[in-house]
Amino acid sequence: MGNIERRLAELNIVLPPASNPAANYTNCVEANGLLFVSGKIPLVDATGAQPAKGKLGREYTTQQGYKLARSAGTDILAVVQLALGTLDRVARVVKLQGFINATEEFDEHPQVLNGCSDLMVEVFGDKGVHARSVLGAVSVRGNQPLVIESIFAVVPM
Amino acid sequence: MGNIERRLAELNIVLPPASNPAANYTNCVEANGLLFVSGKIPLVDATGAQPAKGKLGREYTTQQGYKLARSAGTDILAVVQLALGTLDRVARVVKLQGFINATEEFDEHPQVLNGCSDLMVEVFGDKGVHARSVLGAVSVRGNQPLVIESIFAVVPM
Amino acid sequence: MGNIERRLAELNIVLPPASNPAANYTNCVEANGLLFVSGKIPLVDATGAQPAKGKLGREYTTQQGYKLARSAGTDILAVVQLALGTLDRVARVVKLQGFINATEEFDEHPQVLNGCSDLMVEVFGDKGVHARSVLGAVSVRGNQPLVIESIFAVVPM
Repeated sequence: MGNIERRLAELNIVLPPASNPAANYTNCVEANGLLFVSGKIPLVDATGAQPAKGKLGREYTTQQGYKLARSAGTDILAVVQLALGTLDRVARVVKLQGFINATEEFDEHPQVLNGCSDLMVEVFGDKGVHARSVLGAVSVRGNQPLVIESIFAVVPM
Repeated sequence: MGNIERRLAELNIVLPPASNPAANYTNCVEANGLLFVSGKIPLVDATGAQPAKGKLGREYTTQQGYKLARSAGTDILAVVQLALGTLDRVARVVKLQGFINATEEFDEHPQVLNGCSDLMVEVFGDKGVHARSVLGAVSVRGNQPLVIESIFAVVPM
Repeated sequence: MGNIERRLAELNIVLPPASNPAANYTNCVEANGLLFVSGKIPLVDATGAQPAKGKLGREYTTQQGYKLARSAGTDILAVVQLALGTLDRVARVVKLQGFINATEEFDEHPQVLNGCSDLMVEVFGDKGVHARSVLGAVSVRGNQPLVIESIFAVVPM
């Protein structure tokens, strides 16, 4: 059990089973020391039902969106753990990109993506502080409320 | 003629001439073993006319979108071939990002991007399996139906 | 004072103070020779007021968008300069991604992003020529007109 896995236990964060890719691709590709992770969606909606459906600014509030982004973050961690064997091999969370299924008027995209950003910093400390960007998507696969793509730097074997 | 070029011929895949950048930028930049490829659009629409115009969920069906994504994929391959000399220098298809010009209700973005993903796996086999993400764009340059950005890992010279 | 800083002075380009991240993340992460820069927004709108608010194709024309993208570009340069100490450590502008807050009908996204692309080429010459992609976002944080994310290759220390 790695240090980060111990930290997850201390924080009472239980990772879900890593999700499967939705189509003809893979969860992660490691290339030149960077791990490129496919876009991940929330595991459960704010009421515990799944899958979540709908847009920020209509079906979901910013506060619910924060929880949904955190949920997507736990899947990202599960997927990275599966790919690397242990989260101790994460040298740095490099970048998050948040695609928020949003209305035309919605303007609190950062507050939503913070749900995932905060999780990364809780889990990895300074190594969890990342670059990021976020935007409103007019629609998202399966009407999911958000998709988060990510890049990690990997400690060499 | 490289192995991958032979494979293209076996598959009866004819690459188009590589498209030119639409503005003040370049098709590809190689940096630290990764080839970053600019967003590419379909070459022809589903009826053979070009350029394609319109949105998924309105002017185009998912099935047409699949073919449009495959078409963009052939331009990506042409551009990478031109940059690297031969597609044999592709060590891995690392990531695709699909920006689908879509309606608010459209929810089959993955099935559209599969047109490009399937092409990559047909051509490169295991090296063609990639990470990816996809989202609905409210509008796309020239009202194109989709844009696909990509990253490849490159075999050193 | 580096060569690029001298060039900025010759071009009468004054960099603003680097903006702060809008939430729980950082401006830049360097990993494996690449500098990943968070999404940056325009500093001032076309009339000099700030912050800019609104969509391309409604509140802003393409020509105004060009200037807004250039403005975001100056912040990107400020942020990179702060991270690297001097812009002379930029080996290459690798990629720009433009997220344009746009209407459904807007189709001149490349002409908008050119404002940032042209700045990079003015400042860095051949090293400023980059890969890029651009799309229309249905909404953007704080109703900003655009966000630009970027990746730079870094000269080793």
